[in-house]
Amino acid sequence: MNKNLDEKYMARAIELAKKGIGAVNPNPLVGAVVVKDNRIIGEGWHKKFGGPHAEVWALNKAGENAKGATIYVTLEPCSHQGKTPPCAKRIVESGIKRCVIANFDSNPLVSGKGIEILKNAGIEVEVGVLEKEAKDINKVFFKYIENKVPYLFLKCGITLDGKIATRSGKSKWITNEITREKVQFLRTKFMAIMVGINTVLKDNPSLDSRLDEKKFGIEKRNPFRVVIDPNLESPIGAKFLNFNDGKAIIVTSTDNKNFEKIKEYKDLGTRFIFLEGKIFKIGDILKELGKLEIDSVLLEGGSGLISTAFKENIIDAGEIFIAPKIIGDNSAISFINGFNFDSMEDVFKLSNPKFNIYGDNVSLEFENL
Amino acid sequence: MNKNLDEKYMARAIELAKKGIGAVNPNPLVGAVVVKDNRIIGEGWHKKFGGPHAEVWALNKAGENAKGATIYVTLEPCSHQGKTPPCAKRIVESGIKRCVIANFDSNPLVSGKGIEILKNAGIEVEVGVLEKEAKDINKVFFKYIENKVPYLFLKCGITLDGKIATRSGKSKWITNEITREKVQFLRTKFMAIMVGINTVLKDNPSLDSRLDEKKFGIEKRNPFRVVIDPNLESPIGAKFLNFNDGKAIIVTSTDNKNFEKIKEYKDLGTRFIFLEGKIFKIGDILKELGKLEIDSVLLEGGSGLISTAFKENIIDAGEIFIAPKIIGDNSAISFINGFNFDSMEDVFKLSNPKFNIYGDNVSLEFENL
Repeated sequence: MNKNLDEKYMARAIELAKKGIGAVNPNPLVGAVVVKDNRIIGEGWHKKFGGPHAEVWALNKAGENAKGATIYVTLEPCSHQGKTPPCAKRIVESGIKRCVIANFDSNPLVSGKGIEILKNAGIEVEVGVLEKEAKDINKVFFKYIENKVPYLFLKCGITLDGKIATRSGKSKWITNEITREKVQFLRTKFMAIMVGINTVLKDNPSLDSRLDEKKFGIEKRNPFRVVIDPNLESPIGAKFLNFNDGKAIIVTSTDNKNFEKIKEYKDLGTRFIFLEGKIFKIGDILKELGKLEIDSVLLEGGSGLISTAFKENIIDAGEIFIAPKIIGDNSAISFINGFNFDSMEDVFKLSNPKFNIYGDNVSLEFENL
Repeated sequence: MNKNLDEKYMARAIELAKKGIGAVNPNPLVGAVVVKDNRIIGEGWHKKFGGPHAEVWALNKAGENAKGATIYVTLEPCSHQGKTPPCAKRIVESGIKRCVIANFDSNPLVSGKGIEILKNAGIEVEVGVLEKEAKDINKVFFKYIENKVPYLFLKCGITLDGKIATRSGKSKWITNEITREKVQFLRTKFMAIMVGINTVLKDNPSLDSRLDEKKFGIEKRNPFRVVIDPNLESPIGAKFLNFNDGKAIIVTSTDNKNFEKIKEYKDLGTRFIFLEGKIFKIGDILKELGKLEIDSVLLEGGSGLISTAFKENIIDAGEIFIAPKIIGDNSAISFINGFNFDSMEDVFKLSNPKFNIYGDNVSLEFENL
């Protein structure tokens, strides 16, 4: 087959898949395109967690015409009865002749079995077209499905001298509006936001997503709001507790025996993660969040939490927004502190840096591959 | 006349002018193009301080053909006998019919007089074509000719957390090689480098320019090496003192009466600027450097000097190079310190920021207009 054409249609399928950002977690983003006589006759993407898969939308669109056609799908079609019937079977039934796939599914329930069904039915199968590009959009899915631990993404807005607030704690605003819009996108993209109790006490953030849906072309979704609060200091009236959506999560110590107060939080729909001691490992918190089927966490600070994450070397990727401002005060609050490196050889080096210019701000994206 | 054509030839003249970067200070960069029948018949630029001006090179190239032609020149032709004869007269003699100029010359010896000579000879004169673009390449010249104070440009390489060294003073290397090449360009472009005595004691820098001439298309030139050394602590063997080129300048206190030591420095060809007290205003130093016909100074640190420059609000422009590294230590050395701003409204905001990506480093250029 024509390699360029295969890549062209797969690129389209990847584009479609991205329309599901923020709506399908912890499922993967998937796009599908049905092509016959070099013409697209059906398209679809996984639109909502629990809803029909991409292949189904695309095949429905193609209808009877699918007979003898080629389907491009970004991820191996599923082989198991989940919330929806297996897509591999649906493809076989539709009379598809050839199936081009970007990525194998690492989900042990699928892994290779979807392809087996297709091949057994005599469908020509090709795997690996735009493999990297397709994998790139599903980093969260692959990390979670393989480790059952959420993907951890750092977001942070700093001055040129690396500060997140003046010495008196003032932080509004360091970065510009364009970057703050991007943050709303990240809050939709990732399933949970995590902050420390100091951020709650100081800023009383609502930790919701106020995404400009039109601009970003996806629907906004409020993330789970995870607050690390060892001593249960979150005020009952704190904004993050009062959405009545069951998405507030307090991580606290098993030492807290104030069951009356815990009941008050629970009455607001708050969930709890109890850990031993008072100083938690972020790794332990992530494991617990993974059990709640949370596949990704946006770490928004403050300084203590970010420093701990670097110490544990547990960050998968991140974006640090830099404003052309200078506080020029060693007593102002740095985004990270508490290390003591002697040589430049030993300091933290962010991997695979990429820069984005947002008007008069710039961001550094990094990623541990 | 055709505005697009005028701009096209002036753009070429500006390109030519830039070839003089680092070679003509404190003279302006100037380029000239002679055009006849829509064909370039002569080009030139001001190549070296004291050497022939751009117009002369271009007219020499054009020869007899210049009769009836148009000359494009980025700066008003000079009217006075300086190191070379006045260009305005040379243009008149050549039989040029039309003269297109980008910028008036603010040099009081020229200002308008060059144009007057041309007009009196019946030459058609047009001023202001690509005015802004031409002014942009001569910011140093215009600042210096109008104020007799050098243009001050900050260069600084920092980590993401705004540090220039670990707590033990180690700074090699924060930024990458591409940015370090750019620094060599800046050291050629500006007439002097200025650092504090601590930088000398800690790093013993040579403060010369190690420019890759081929890559940048200009000849390298060592800058004047200005060290602020109130207590005369510079070791006689310090690298910056031992070039035997008369370009080392020590700024020290009139309190220093150790004339024997001063003689030792002077024997190496070192010049002195004496100022009262021990804590100098950078503004006072710049005035003295201006008297030495130094039109531009590259401020390379360290932290104390940069902080003082911000305090005096005296920086004209700068480029801050940022590496994707984190020291994460409040005891490491910040590029700026000593301020105490309470609110984000009050902190320093760098004007007209522009970002340059240098591989895995990014820089922020700023400019006070």
